[in-house]
Amino acid sequence: VEGLKRLMMTEGDVALLSSSGTGAMEAVVSSLVRGMGKALVVDAGKFGKRWGELCEAFGVPHENLHVQRGYPVDPEVIFDSLRKDSAICAVLMTLTETSTCVVHDVKTIGLGLGAWKGLLVVDAISGLVADELKMDEWGVDVCVTGSQKGLMLPPGLGIVAMNAKARATLDARNAGKAAGCYYLDLRRYVESYEKELDVPFTPSIALIRALEESLVVLLDEGMECVWNRHARMAAAVRQGCEAMGMRLLATSRPSNAVTAVFPPTGVDAGALSKILKNDKGIRVAGGQEELKGKILRIAHLGACYEEDVLGLMGAIESCLAQLGAPIQSGQAVAAANAALVGS
Amino acid sequence: VEGLKRLMMTEGDVALLSSSGTGAMEAVVSSLVRGMGKALVVDAGKFGKRWGELCEAFGVPHENLHVQRGYPVDPEVIFDSLRKDSAICAVLMTLTETSTCVVHDVKTIGLGLGAWKGLLVVDAISGLVADELKMDEWGVDVCVTGSQKGLMLPPGLGIVAMNAKARATLDARNAGKAAGCYYLDLRRYVESYEKELDVPFTPSIALIRALEESLVVLLDEGMECVWNRHARMAAAVRQGCEAMGMRLLATSRPSNAVTAVFPPTGVDAGALSKILKNDKGIRVAGGQEELKGKILRIAHLGACYEEDVLGLMGAIESCLAQLGAPIQSGQAVAAANAALVGS
Repeated sequence: VEGLKRLMMTEGDVALLSSSGTGAMEAVVSSLVRGMGKALVVDAGKFGKRWGELCEAFGVPHENLHVQRGYPVDPEVIFDSLRKDSAICAVLMTLTETSTCVVHDVKTIGLGLGAWKGLLVVDAISGLVADELKMDEWGVDVCVTGSQKGLMLPPGLGIVAMNAKARATLDARNAGKAAGCYYLDLRRYVESYEKELDVPFTPSIALIRALEESLVVLLDEGMECVWNRHARMAAAVRQGCEAMGMRLLATSRPSNAVTAVFPPTGVDAGALSKILKNDKGIRVAGGQEELKGKILRIAHLGACYEEDVLGLMGAIESCLAQLGAPIQSGQAVAAANAALVGS
Repeated sequence: VEGLKRLMMTEGDVALLSSSGTGAMEAVVSSLVRGMGKALVVDAGKFGKRWGELCEAFGVPHENLHVQRGYPVDPEVIFDSLRKDSAICAVLMTLTETSTCVVHDVKTIGLGLGAWKGLLVVDAISGLVADELKMDEWGVDVCVTGSQKGLMLPPGLGIVAMNAKARATLDARNAGKAAGCYYLDLRRYVESYEKELDVPFTPSIALIRALEESLVVLLDEGMECVWNRHARMAAAVRQGCEAMGMRLLATSRPSNAVTAVFPPTGVDAGALSKILKNDKGIRVAGGQEELKGKILRIAHLGACYEEDVLGLMGAIESCLAQLGAPIQSGQAVAAANAALVGS
């Protein structure tokens, strides 16, 4: 918990849930946001939309702010929405929208909200560690993450960090006996930690032990260095892919955690990912929902280092050549290398 | 999933949740039992009582059947309650009440319920594998368990098995859009498995891989042999402890998973567990709630074999002698050995 606070840059509370990241999102909606009033959901892809689905499941009134796929939300649009509708008590958004590989400008949004009395809730499940996030400095009230991305662990641990404002809201919520949550009730977690430095239910011990180790690795490297490393790797992937004739989905604010690319003209996204997996043992993700079958999503986060990125570029070059794409061998690796050195 | 069905002896559905056992219990209450009507909670200790707390959290009307601590519920009392109150639609109970180390007579209850239209829901988190359970044969409609007990894994996986009657109830429940559950909605799990042999949210992969291995070990040994092994080990612990002047908490239907004993007269339970931990590296649990500080709870389940039980008896003998109890060295081990051979 103390290591996570340093990593997430908050003096607040941290709840360690044995669940996947969605369980932690559910805990925020069901035990904190529910009962506050109306929520504004930043729907820029599958994961932003999930906040809306959770609001629906728990009867939280909400407004969906639809953002064009592949683009970050314009902070001014959020500020406008809040000015127009004073009933809004929480903004629910993602740091990195994993489905489009865009990183939202949480810093400008958080700082712009200033003394707003509502809660800024950020799902940083895929983004944390790879994309910069400074909870307290930026005014992020609640941050959700999971073990399986930047924290370099297997999935199974959900994490919710709350600043003092969020904690006060949690404490003030008088849900009565029928709170509508129990295992995923954040109050049980923060109170159990305060009283006994423990969690209220048998925890995912193996992952918590592993988390202790990964926090040592990351905090020893230092968060500024960690963010810079991910930024270098992301730039290398983007420039390497462009050198192979791929087009980036996110041209504005691409994430440093994961990159979405359209394959070169004439190459099928599914065929490329299949050959990468079968011939090279490398798994890249495909698109989701409206982007299914159209893009590749290349992760470069967690226990991922510069040589991994260069190796990946070389592997994609080879697979594209096999698929008949006009590839000049070495081009992508050279472009990626230039990005690594140049930045 | 297929291995769990063989182990739990059901032809029904199995949901694999990334959560602790309590999360799986919550899934049952929030996505299945809620909306059915009234529940009868068999409260024979801390874990039976938890069903009642979950009912309260989710606004499920329920009647608490208080059972004297250390005793199993009398099946006739359950049948009586159902005869008197036709509004009851679900019986929520445990197989093994871990806080008192009693195993309820689920077989007699399940068979006695016969064609009752409600659901018999059994928390077998600590009992499964160690204490006999045959879901379909006994008429258990829903069975909940976790990874960290008889399944020999670290905690973090919650498991819910449902027979056809429970599945029909789940399917018939029209919760509308505001279902009041999302991550812990059982319907998402069974539908995702049917459609894609998958889970709906990023799962605790490492534990699922490990579960595949432990299922092979257990199913190779065979459930009848596994149950007999646990019965032998439990008998050995009981007879060994009695030979050291300890009194059993559960004299009627003691569990084969875990044994609760009062320390010999004049010996403090906390002092004994402390010396066992510090000098022998053996951790035994203490009492919970009204039994706190009064008893020791000795687990003999999971990756636990006859030599472990003999070693434990020897270690307790040595610690009791250190604490000044009148112990005849070798007595407990001899008694335990006799039980292992005799049964």
